Amino acid sequence: MKLLTGINTHVSDDQGELSSFCSLCRAVNVPRPTTTIASLRNVDVDRCQEVVLYGYLISQRKASSRLYFAEILDIDGCTSVQVKLDAAQVDQTLMNDFKSVRPYTPVSITGKLIKRASTVERSSTQTDDVAKINDVELSVKHMNILNEFPKDIIVATNTVIPPEQRHLQMRTDKNIRDSIRFRSRLCQAIRDYLCNHHKFTEVETPILFKSTPEGAHEFLVPTRTAGLAYALPQSPQQYKQILMASGISRYMQIAKCFRDEDLRADRQPEFTQVDLEMAFSGEEEVMAMVEGLVKHVFLTSGSPDHELSIHGFPRVTYEYAMSNYGSDKPDTRFDATITRIDYMLPADLVRKITDLTDPVVECIKLPIAKDPNNTRKFVNTFMDSIACKPFMNNPDGRPGIFIYNSRQPLGGLAALGFEAAEQLENSLCLEDGDLLVLQARPNKPFSGGSTMLGNLRLALHKVAVSQGLLPVPSGWNFLWVVEFPLFSPMTPDKPSSDIEEPTDPHLSDSTSFPLSDLGQLYPQLESTHHPFTAPLTAEDTELLLLDPTLAKAAHYDLVLNGVEIGGGSRRIHHTDLQRFVLQDILKLSEERMATFSHLLEVLRAGAPPHAGMALGLDRLIMLMLGKESVRDVIAFPKWGKGEDVLVKAPSRVDDEMWKRYHLKPIINV
Amino acid sequence: MKLLTGINTHVSDDQGELSSFCSLCRAVNVPRPTTTIASLRNVDVDRCQEVVLYGYLISQRKASSRLYFAEILDIDGCTSVQVKLDAAQVDQTLMNDFKSVRPYTPVSITGKLIKRASTVERSSTQTDDVAKINDVELSVKHMNILNEFPKDIIVATNTVIPPEQRHLQMRTDKNIRDSIRFRSRLCQAIRDYLCNHHKFTEVETPILFKSTPEGAHEFLVPTRTAGLAYALPQSPQQYKQILMASGISRYMQIAKCFRDEDLRADRQPEFTQVDLEMAFSGEEEVMAMVEGLVKHVFLTSGSPDHELSIHGFPRVTYEYAMSNYGSDKPDTRFDATITRIDYMLPADLVRKITDLTDPVVECIKLPIAKDPNNTRKFVNTFMDSIACKPFMNNPDGRPGIFIYNSRQPLGGLAALGFEAAEQLENSLCLEDGDLLVLQARPNKPFSGGSTMLGNLRLALHKVAVSQGLLPVPSGWNFLWVVEFPLFSPMTPDKPSSDIEEPTDPHLSDSTSFPLSDLGQLYPQLESTHHPFTAPLTAEDTELLLLDPTLAKAAHYDLVLNGVEIGGGSRRIHHTDLQRFVLQDILKLSEERMATFSHLLEVLRAGAPPHAGMALGLDRLIMLMLGKESVRDVIAFPKWGKGEDVLVKAPSRVDDEMWKRYHLKPIINV
Repeated sequence: MKLLTGINTHVSDDQGELSSFCSLCRAVNVPRPTTTIASLRNVDVDRCQEVVLYGYLISQRKASSRLYFAEILDIDGCTSVQVKLDAAQVDQTLMNDFKSVRPYTPVSITGKLIKRASTVERSSTQTDDVAKINDVELSVKHMNILNEFPKDIIVATNTVIPPEQRHLQMRTDKNIRDSIRFRSRLCQAIRDYLCNHHKFTEVETPILFKSTPEGAHEFLVPTRTAGLAYALPQSPQQYKQILMASGISRYMQIAKCFRDEDLRADRQPEFTQVDLEMAFSGEEEVMAMVEGLVKHVFLTSGSPDHELSIHGFPRVTYEYAMSNYGSDKPDTRFDATITRIDYMLPADLVRKITDLTDPVVECIKLPIAKDPNNTRKFVNTFMDSIACKPFMNNPDGRPGIFIYNSRQPLGGLAALGFEAAEQLENSLCLEDGDLLVLQARPNKPFSGGSTMLGNLRLALHKVAVSQGLLPVPSGWNFLWVVEFPLFSPMTPDKPSSDIEEPTDPHLSDSTSFPLSDLGQLYPQLESTHHPFTAPLTAEDTELLLLDPTLAKAAHYDLVLNGVEIGGGSRRIHHTDLQRFVLQDILKLSEERMATFSHLLEVLRAGAPPHAGMALGLDRLIMLMLGKESVRDVIAFPKWGKGEDVLVKAPSRVDDEMWKRYHLKPIINV
Repeated sequence: MKLLTGINTHVSDDQGELSSFCSLCRAVNVPRPTTTIASLRNVDVDRCQEVVLYGYLISQRKASSRLYFAEILDIDGCTSVQVKLDAAQVDQTLMNDFKSVRPYTPVSITGKLIKRASTVERSSTQTDDVAKINDVELSVKHMNILNEFPKDIIVATNTVIPPEQRHLQMRTDKNIRDSIRFRSRLCQAIRDYLCNHHKFTEVETPILFKSTPEGAHEFLVPTRTAGLAYALPQSPQQYKQILMASGISRYMQIAKCFRDEDLRADRQPEFTQVDLEMAFSGEEEVMAMVEGLVKHVFLTSGSPDHELSIHGFPRVTYEYAMSNYGSDKPDTRFDATITRIDYMLPADLVRKITDLTDPVVECIKLPIAKDPNNTRKFVNTFMDSIACKPFMNNPDGRPGIFIYNSRQPLGGLAALGFEAAEQLENSLCLEDGDLLVLQARPNKPFSGGSTMLGNLRLALHKVAVSQGLLPVPSGWNFLWVVEFPLFSPMTPDKPSSDIEEPTDPHLSDSTSFPLSDLGQLYPQLESTHHPFTAPLTAEDTELLLLDPTLAKAAHYDLVLNGVEIGGGSRRIHHTDLQRFVLQDILKLSEERMATFSHLLEVLRAGAPPHAGMALGLDRLIMLMLGKESVRDVIAFPKWGKGEDVLVKAPSRVDDEMWKRYHLKPIINV
C-alpha cells in the first residue's frame, strides 16, 4: 500500500520523536484523581491515606541528597500542597523524574497523605497568590508526567510574557484567570436578576445582519451571491425593537457586537454588551430596572460599598453636566466644578485669553498644593507635557493660569481686576497654592461629549494624582445623565486627540448615527443618540416642526466614575413619527429610507411603546475590577490594529477564496 | 434658517400625518399599570377596585346597543381578561374608540374590577392558547390607544403569516414565543448545571477568528488592511483547547458558530452550540458530565420520562451501529435491525441484485401490515415516490423486495432458495405481510455516516408511519456511539440526496476536516472527527505508524432518537503527536502547517490532557419541543439561501464600501 509506505518511509526519519509520543499517549491511561487539592484542607489523614492528585508540579527543591520537596498546584492554579520524595522509599527512575521535571509540568501523583510536622510557610514568589495547604503533605509513591514542559520556555517571577503567549500569561497569572472567572459569575448574576427575578427572556439575535449604507464602521461578510453581503451588528437595536412588536415583552441578551474602527485601550473590534428592552415601558421603568440590576451585581459580587444599596443614583441633565463638569459623563469623585465668570471679567483680560467675540469664560479651581511654588512647579511640568498640547493649540484660546498666593497683591489675581479677584476669592474659597484655570469657549449651546475646560479638568487632575498632589479618587459614583438634545449639528469627523473622549459607541445601545446627505445645501442635524430615540415630551415632539435643535430626547446615559457604562432611550414606536425623523429631519435619501422599511413596517403593525438600554460589559467589569484596559477582562482580546496575536488573525486570504465570494483584491491601493 | 424652512415646507404637505403623531406621542404619558392581568387571578375585588391594565385589545363584540365586550391580552400574550363597556357610564368618544379599535392594538385601560356573574367560557379561536381570567372582569372607565393597528393587516384564525412578518408570526402564535422562552430557560439551566454546580467557567471566545486555507465553508470578514481577513468560527475548538493550556480547567460557552453552506431544514448559517472542555480529563469524564447535564435539563424542563433519571445512556460502537442500523446515529425507537445474509444466499440471486463481486448482502424486516396485499400496495406507492429514487439509482444494486405470505410456497421467499428462506423465516420470526428488504454493498470496512440500507430503513419507516401503518415512534432514546475510526478514506464531495444524512458538522465540536493535498499520488485520509482527536488507546497510537486506517478514535457522539445532538473527543495534547497527524497522516502542506503553528506551540508548553464536547443547541431544543425545523426554535432564523427575509439581509453592497476593504466585485461570474 502506497499510503503505508509513505508513512513508513517517514518513520525511519523520526523514530525518536514517534516513540516519544507513543509513550506519552500511554500516560493518558493514568489513575484518576481520588480527590482535589483544595479538599485536602480538611482531610482526615487517618482515614484517607493514599490519594491520587492531578496538577502542575512547581517549586522543586532539594533538602538533602535523599529528600526532595516540591509543590503540586491544582488544575485551576488556585491551591497547592507540598509533596515530598524520599529516595529511600522510591525507585531511581521516579527520583530522576522528580528531580528533572520542569515547573508547570502537568502530572498525576499517587502518594501517602501525612500530617506536616512544621507548618512554617516557605515563601515562593511563583505561587504567592496561591492558597497553600499547610497541615498535610503528600509523600510521593508514583508519578505520571502527563506532558512535557519545554526547557526553552522560562516562567519565572517578573517574566514579562508577551500577548503572543496568552496561554502562558493566563496560566501563570492568577489575576487574569480570576478576572475571567469573575466575568462568568457576573454574567450569571445579570441573567439571574433579569430572567429569574424580572421575567426577561434572553433572545439570541442574529450575528449575520444587514449592511446599511450608513455603516461606515461595520464589518462586512460577503456571501456567495455576487454583490450581496451581511454585516456584523453594531448592536441588536433593530432586532430588539422588533421583539417588542413580537409579544416578547422583556428582552435581554449578553450580546456580541462589532465595530470596525481603530483600537484604543478601552475599545475592541468585538465587544459585549448587556442589552435589554422593555415593551409598554418608558425611560423611568428602564432606569429603575437597570439601577436595580447594577446594584444587585455590585452587591452580590462583593462590593463593600453599602451606600449603594441605600441611595438612588443621582440624576443630572446634560446641560447641568456640561456647565458644571464640561463633560456629559462627569467624574464626580472630585470637585473642581466649573464656574462661569465672563460677566465679572475686564474686557481686556478676555481679549488676552481668546480671539472669540462674545465668548463664555469659565474657570475651575484645583487645590494642587499648599505652597504656591509647588503649584507653579506642577503647572510648568504640565505645560511642557504632551498631555497639555491640545489645550495650547485650542483655537478658542489657551487656558489662563493663576496660582493663588495671599502674599501677593489681590492674591496674585490682579490681572482679573479687583472685583473679579475679590469675588472669586470668596466664592471659590481660594487658599494658598490653589490653581485657578480660565478658559474661553464660543457662546453657543452645548453639543458633543465635552468642552475643552472639561477635558483640561480631567487632565490636570490625572497628572496631579499621578504626582501624589491630589488623593486617588475612590468610591462608586454612579450618575444618570438625562435630557440630552435629540439632535446635534452634524460635525465632520473630528481629528483624534489624546484627551477628547467622544461618546463611546460601545456603550450605547445602537450605532452612532451620522447621516449625511452629500447633496444638501444647509446645515445638517444628526441624532445625538440614534434615530430611533423618542422626543422627551409631547412638547418636544411639537418642537420637531418648529426647531428640532431645541427638542430634548428621552435618552439616558449611566455614568460611573466619569466613564459612560451604558446608554439607552425610549424609542419612537409610531411609524409616522419615525419616518418623519428619518426623512424630514435627518434627510435620508430614498435609497437609505428603503433600508429602514422593515422597521417602519414593524412599528406600523401596532408596536407598543418601548424603551431599552445597553451596558458595556467589558468596561463595566474593567471598572469593577479596577483594571486599566478592557483587555484585562477579555480572555482573548485583540491587540494593535485588531490582531489576535496568539492565533495570528486576521490572516492573508488568497485570490481563490475571494473568488468564491465574487471578489478580488485591489492591488496597489 | 434654511433647515426650518425645509421642514416647514414639508409640513404643509403632511399636516394631517404630523398632528396624528403628535397626538400619539402624548399617548405615552398615560397612567402606569397598577397590576398585571395574570395577577387578577386571585384578586380580592372588594379591596382592589380601580386598576390600570396594559395589553392588546382583542375580540371586541357587541352585546347590545349600549353594552360592548372585549378582552385585553397581557403584554406577553399569555393571559386575558374580559373588559366591558357600558355606554351609559362613559362618554361618546370612548365608546367610539372602543367600537373601532382594531384587534392587537396596544392599549392602556383604566377601569373598575367586578366579579363576573357567569363564568361561562366564550370560545375565541384567536386566543385558544391563552389562559383566561374568568371570575373577574373590568368595567372600562378610560382607554388610551398606544399605537394604531392598521386596517390592511388582517390577523385571523388560520391566517398564514409569511416569514417577512416574523414579528406578526411571533405576536400571534404563542407557540413560537413559548419556544423562545423555553430556549432562554434551557440556557439558564445549562449554565446553572455546569457553572454553579460543576465549576465550569463560561468564557467568551472571539467571533473574529482566523481564516484557514482549508476553510471551504467559512465566512470571511475583510479588514481594512489589504488582503487580510478574519473568518467567523465554525466552532471555538482551538480557543477552548488553548484555554485548557491556560489554567481554566473547565470551560463552557453557549457559543455562536458559523458555516457558509447551503441550508436545510435543520441547518442555519449561524447556529448555537453548547461547547465545553475539561482539562486533566478524558472521554469518560466528559461523557459522564454531558450525560448528567442532558438528564438535568430534560428533567428540569418537565420531561415526563422518569426512566431517564434511572438508567445510563446505552453505548454502542460505530461498527455495531453501522452493522445493525446502517447508521452512525441509529434511531433505536423501532426495530428493523439489519442482518447480514450473503452467506446463505444462492449466487444467482446475489448476481440479480448487484453487479458487485464479493458483496455484502444485508436485509431488514418491517411489519408493514398483516395482509400481504396491503404491504404490496405500500411497496408500490413507495417505489413510485421520489423518496425511493436514490435507492433505485444505487450503483451497488437496487433493493430486493419480498413480502412474506404463508399461503405461497416458502412464504413467497422462493427466490432466496430453500435454506435461506427457512432460516430467515425462523430467525426473523416472519409473519404474513412482513416486508423483507435485501440490499448489497461493497465488502469493505464501514466509513461515513450511513449505508444505503440504513437510509432505506429510515425512509420506509417514515413513509409507513405517515400512512399509519407503523406506530409513531416515541420516547427519548439516547445513545452514545463510540470507537469511530480515527481516519476515513477521503471522499470527494458527495452528490446531495434527500435521504443521505452525512454527519452534521453543526453538531460536532469542530470543523469537519477534509484536508486534501492536490499534488499527492496515493489515497488520502481525512479525520473522521477532526485532526485534534486523540487515538483511543496506546495501541491505536502505535497503529498510526503501521496502518492508520485501523486506529480507533477517542471520539464519542451523542444520539437522540436517530439525530446526532452532539459530538466530542479526547484531544491530542502532545505537540509531536499533533504534528505527526497533521503532517504525516493528513499530509498538510508547509503553508497549511503554518496556520496551526500557534496550536502546536500551545500544546508544546506543557498542555495538560483534555477532552470536550459540543451539543447542537438549536437541534436539541427542536427535538425537546417536537418541532420539525430548527427555524421553529430561533427567533430570527435565516430562510431560503440564508436570507433574513424580515430585515432583508444579506443586501447589496456598493463598490465604495468594498473599496474600504481593498476589494472589488467581479462582474459576470
